Amino acid sequence: MINPRPYRRDFPYSYIWGIYPVLELLTIKPYLVRQVFITSNTSSSPNIKKITDICSAANIEQSTNDQLISKLSGSDNSHVLAVFEKNYPSLNSNSNHVVLVNPSDMGNLGTIMRTMASFNFSDLAIIDPAVDIFDPKVLRASMGSLFHLNFSFFSSFSEYQIQYSRHYYPFMTTGGTELRHSKFIHPYSLIFGSEGPGLSPDYNQIGTPIKISQSNQVDSLNLSIAVALALYACT
Amino acid sequence: MINPRPYRRDFPYSYIWGIYPVLELLTIKPYLVRQVFITSNTSSSPNIKKITDICSAANIEQSTNDQLISKLSGSDNSHVLAVFEKNYPSLNSNSNHVVLVNPSDMGNLGTIMRTMASFNFSDLAIIDPAVDIFDPKVLRASMGSLFHLNFSFFSSFSEYQIQYSRHYYPFMTTGGTELRHSKFIHPYSLIFGSEGPGLSPDYNQIGTPIKISQSNQVDSLNLSIAVALALYACT
Repeated sequence: MINPRPYRRDFPYSYIWGIYPVLELLTIKPYLVRQVFITSNTSSSPNIKKITDICSAANIEQSTNDQLISKLSGSDNSHVLAVFEKNYPSLNSNSNHVVLVNPSDMGNLGTIMRTMASFNFSDLAIIDPAVDIFDPKVLRASMGSLFHLNFSFFSSFSEYQIQYSRHYYPFMTTGGTELRHSKFIHPYSLIFGSEGPGLSPDYNQIGTPIKISQSNQVDSLNLSIAVALALYACT
Repeated sequence: MINPRPYRRDFPYSYIWGIYPVLELLTIKPYLVRQVFITSNTSSSPNIKKITDICSAANIEQSTNDQLISKLSGSDNSHVLAVFEKNYPSLNSNSNHVVLVNPSDMGNLGTIMRTMASFNFSDLAIIDPAVDIFDPKVLRASMGSLFHLNFSFFSSFSEYQIQYSRHYYPFMTTGGTELRHSKFIHPYSLIFGSEGPGLSPDYNQIGTPIKISQSNQVDSLNLSIAVALALYACT
């Protein structure tokens, strides 16, 4: 039995709470789960019953611990929390990829993973420095979608390029091709910059830069919105 | 001179921080601005110069107050904060509307406003109960887009319907028409439910329910993502 502490990036494990995300984890990757914590007031919930049944069948340790769940989730509304080992399912070289260069907002990263899973995009490359994909805040925004995805980290875009030679589509407000008129040649990589500055002008020299047309009333779209529009348009 | 306190919903004023949002406010609705606060370490910034020039020309009071900006913004990275009177620009009955039924997440509401402004959608109806559109957290996520929009609040969807008779398109996972194949007849209203439960089944009887196809890997799309895809598809 372990008693997890508030998350830190150097931990070999992370945790996720909430019935839907925990069920996702237990269904897709039960072998990663070390332990499940449940609050004491949930005996009659059919979804909790489903969770405890999966745990029993897979020999996953279960404990009741209201205080720990409340402390780690930061809320009294969570009834279940699962501790799991970090793992790094590597990218598929025949799939289309989303590449995020230096993503800096945890909510955006989680929402992007959730949207990728909605559109059957399974491969995410992240160029460091970036927020921690295993941070519980990211996992929470992803609603457990992390467990559907492959992901890898690269120290620079050049390092990514060496491993994955394919069609590159950087998204830039200066892009020459409008998203609505773009054709994407498989396998491809959709590349997005960070929340503030976007991609540096160097990316104009890489592949086919794409622009999402917008009014002059705003500076730019939110990153998670730009990625969602791109995925919608190319599927 | 006023010394604003941490925001409360019953205040007749709110505030927004950050150079871009404050410039938006000063450019679009300078008559709402009561006072601008600037930190002491910003003298050489050209954007701060632009802000102080507008304030001087419009006779808007300016003060230096590092501590107040840090306290209200919750960060030491903000250099300017503007206090403004709340106002309620009413909906245009010939425009297309976004209708949010009980939105409950401040970040989503702000992001939706930012996306609306990007796609030249200017009218937002909100069915109460809902998060406070003037809450600084909403304004921050909107990046100042609030000042481009008209918005009104209704106690129920029926109350909205009585005032705005038009084509209704509720977005529901059970919708019979797929977004990609939808035609929207002007003037129309795109209607979205709250973050958790979405719209109640009653909305199946209202107008043309629309569905955004998605994989079975996720429960639903994030609300701000669903609104963005709808706006993209119908513009």
